[in-house]
Amino acid sequence: MQPIKKIIGVASGKGGVGKSMVALNLALALLARKHAVGLLDADIYGPSQPTMLDAVGKRPALQAGGLQPINRWGLQTMSMGYLVDVEAPMIWRGPMIGKALQQLFSDTLWGELDYLVIDLPPGTGDVQLTLCQKIPVSGIVIVTTPQAVALADVTRACEMFRKLNVPLLGIVENMGVYRCEHCGHDAHPFGSGGGATLAEQYQLEVLAKIPLDAAVSTMMDYGNPPMIAAPEGDFAKKFDAMAKKIIEMF
Amino acid sequence: MQPIKKIIGVASGKGGVGKSMVALNLALALLARKHAVGLLDADIYGPSQPTMLDAVGKRPALQAGGLQPINRWGLQTMSMGYLVDVEAPMIWRGPMIGKALQQLFSDTLWGELDYLVIDLPPGTGDVQLTLCQKIPVSGIVIVTTPQAVALADVTRACEMFRKLNVPLLGIVENMGVYRCEHCGHDAHPFGSGGGATLAEQYQLEVLAKIPLDAAVSTMMDYGNPPMIAAPEGDFAKKFDAMAKKIIEMF
Repeated sequence: MQPIKKIIGVASGKGGVGKSMVALNLALALLARKHAVGLLDADIYGPSQPTMLDAVGKRPALQAGGLQPINRWGLQTMSMGYLVDVEAPMIWRGPMIGKALQQLFSDTLWGELDYLVIDLPPGTGDVQLTLCQKIPVSGIVIVTTPQAVALADVTRACEMFRKLNVPLLGIVENMGVYRCEHCGHDAHPFGSGGGATLAEQYQLEVLAKIPLDAAVSTMMDYGNPPMIAAPEGDFAKKFDAMAKKIIEMF
Repeated sequence: MQPIKKIIGVASGKGGVGKSMVALNLALALLARKHAVGLLDADIYGPSQPTMLDAVGKRPALQAGGLQPINRWGLQTMSMGYLVDVEAPMIWRGPMIGKALQQLFSDTLWGELDYLVIDLPPGTGDVQLTLCQKIPVSGIVIVTTPQAVALADVTRACEMFRKLNVPLLGIVENMGVYRCEHCGHDAHPFGSGGGATLAEQYQLEVLAKIPLDAAVSTMMDYGNPPMIAAPEGDFAKKFDAMAKKIIEMF
């Protein structure tokens, strides 16, 4: 085993809820608090981290013993997106996916890490099973939007992690509010209150409420995450507060 | 084989882009044009259709020869969500998922259908492989948002369907615009232009551009889709135009 102190999975029931954005900014918030941090993009089918890290096309160096992670702003990162062409679809049957995750985890020369954040694919499939069975995960952060259809999927994900005896650390509610850039009106394009309902149902803390923000979407698309681009902004403060809560849990 | 004339898959590269909403309203738009239509929810891990159809808890009757689909507004529907507890996670390895889809398709007593719309799970995994290899799909509608990270995933999905020789019928761009309910300002919370770029790259038609709309999110959450709740509204008109285009393709 490599010297990694804590492994934190970031999961969601369904896709498109901003899980990769949360995983990356959480990793950067832990890094900003002077910890040694790695980020493993476990979304084998649709790796988003190379785009969000502005690292598309980068290739990890092969060294004796494994792969050198790609260093971005001091963050040690690894993704299937570094190993295959971004446009090439991974048409793999499930068990191969589980193997691929295990290798990405164990063949990367992470070095000594205080935290490894794992960006999990959505759902309750092979990657999640492999993660929980083969990798000593300290806990899971669940990301959701307030929509009812999203919450049903999140409930299934929570039940799965419970069955597999992996602790749930808390919930991040994303895209709950959208503030009009023109008049400042706060709207709820995906409904409201879902995160709180879920947190109550599973007696979990709401670790952060992140608004939907066009500027943040653009920053992520251009590989310039807010924790780096605007470390003093409101968005970064929310992630710093979340990182603090998670650090205090262990 | 059952007497189904055309099978249309609704797919996306990543989750959370509104694929299930598009699949249901497209099926209802085809129905409104006096066709016999079925809807198969192939999202085995996270079936959303029972919620969107206000059919949670309904159980298909087992008859000689197969399962009776659940009839909603004249639409023949089947979903894994009808067969298992909504809160129970489907922790299955990939190949079982492919089998489950095949059975849901072939064991349902669809009757004579002009169109069967299949709501596919996001990504490029077992369900997509099984679909293309075992079910005679006439074509695929791809749903995306304008975000760059979504488009990378869509590109992978398009490449996969091409490799598997399944025709792509066109693209639906969802959540491109959000109109402030207070001042009427049009914002682009997920960026803009992505659908058009993709359509050009693959020489595909943009079948519809659907705005992000809090009222629609709520309608879907309460199992009251706009094609039923507001058949004369702008939203329904967009889906009717899309249905017309698809009918004319065959």
